[in-house]
Amino acid sequence: MELNKRQNEILEIVQSDGPITGEQIAERLNLARATIRPDLAILTMAGYLDARPRVGYFYSGKKPAQSVGDGMIGMKVGDFQSMPVVVAENISVYDAICQMFLEDVGTLFVIDKDSHLSGVLSRKDLLRTSLGNKELDKIPVHVIMTRMPNITYCKKQDTLLYAAKKMIEQQIDSLPVIVERERGLEVVGRITKTNITAAFLSLADDHDL
Amino acid sequence: MELNKRQNEILEIVQSDGPITGEQIAERLNLARATIRPDLAILTMAGYLDARPRVGYFYSGKKPAQSVGDGMIGMKVGDFQSMPVVVAENISVYDAICQMFLEDVGTLFVIDKDSHLSGVLSRKDLLRTSLGNKELDKIPVHVIMTRMPNITYCKKQDTLLYAAKKMIEQQIDSLPVIVERERGLEVVGRITKTNITAAFLSLADDHDL
Repeated sequence: MELNKRQNEILEIVQSDGPITGEQIAERLNLARATIRPDLAILTMAGYLDARPRVGYFYSGKKPAQSVGDGMIGMKVGDFQSMPVVVAENISVYDAICQMFLEDVGTLFVIDKDSHLSGVLSRKDLLRTSLGNKELDKIPVHVIMTRMPNITYCKKQDTLLYAAKKMIEQQIDSLPVIVERERGLEVVGRITKTNITAAFLSLADDHDL
Repeated sequence: MELNKRQNEILEIVQSDGPITGEQIAERLNLARATIRPDLAILTMAGYLDARPRVGYFYSGKKPAQSVGDGMIGMKVGDFQSMPVVVAENISVYDAICQMFLEDVGTLFVIDKDSHLSGVLSRKDLLRTSLGNKELDKIPVHVIMTRMPNITYCKKQDTLLYAAKKMIEQQIDSLPVIVERERGLEVVGRITKTNITAAFLSLADDHDL
């Protein structure tokens, strides 16, 4: 639900000067009380304003329920991302598994000698390799990783909905958050289904659901 | 945003008899046109009704944006859960890993001889065990699994928000969906952060976000 210009004006007046009566608001806008009656009704019903008899209108301070949708659209990757955990291309699968446990993450990002993104290692990749091989300390991760250009990534300013869609479509648990540099991609974050789940919860919390 | 009794009456009239003019609606309710003007404004602004000059009010048919919150609360585990993948207590860690790959899941549920839930195996549990052990085919899963009563579970009728909260709090990727039986818990489903991510997307899709 979009507020119109007049409703936004009323909201501003009440925010700065409430409690204030309907008469006073109308006066400030050079309008008749009857003219703004529907607007006040809408603002009150939608939870933006509270009204008390003989006191007037005051700002409720709580986010109105209908902005859950707006809240959802407004969620950006940058606001919910985690720290990335990166490893070099030549470390062994054994060391990568240890790193994954130490950092307690489900995905490692692999970077080349120029520190640009070159691959992704999932828990599944490592589990698969560890199953058939005895000498995990002899296999470098670049042999088993998913490589560019087959890596799906996102940017800080992307919406969380975009990242969620990519993860579902590609059936992956995590995306690197990158910044494009002249010669490659710099990894600056990690967005996971855990972040999405946390965002889902925070959306509900923000709106007292 | 809650609609009041009169607004719900108006909505019903328009749903069954729209397009209909404001005058006609007021007549049906034995009220003056001016009395219902704020209600019509609210219903139109909130997206429940559309209005066209010289035609009147008609039902928009689309879910109004403010019900994203209601949609969120209404999401139940049973509507989003996946099929559970269960294994017996005495199968080997090796076989459990194979099963996890075959079924492409991140969590296996372990059941006892009476088919009741007795444990949970995460990809992390299996990866940890596979790291230190050469003879994975000799270790039964009941040695490494998380056991009852340390298992967090949920039921079909729980809200998705509840399940999401449990997963974040307990730092786990999946919950078994169970039915309580006389002698134990029957596993009927699996809810994961992937399901939550998909739900997050479907919420946005349903509301054209």
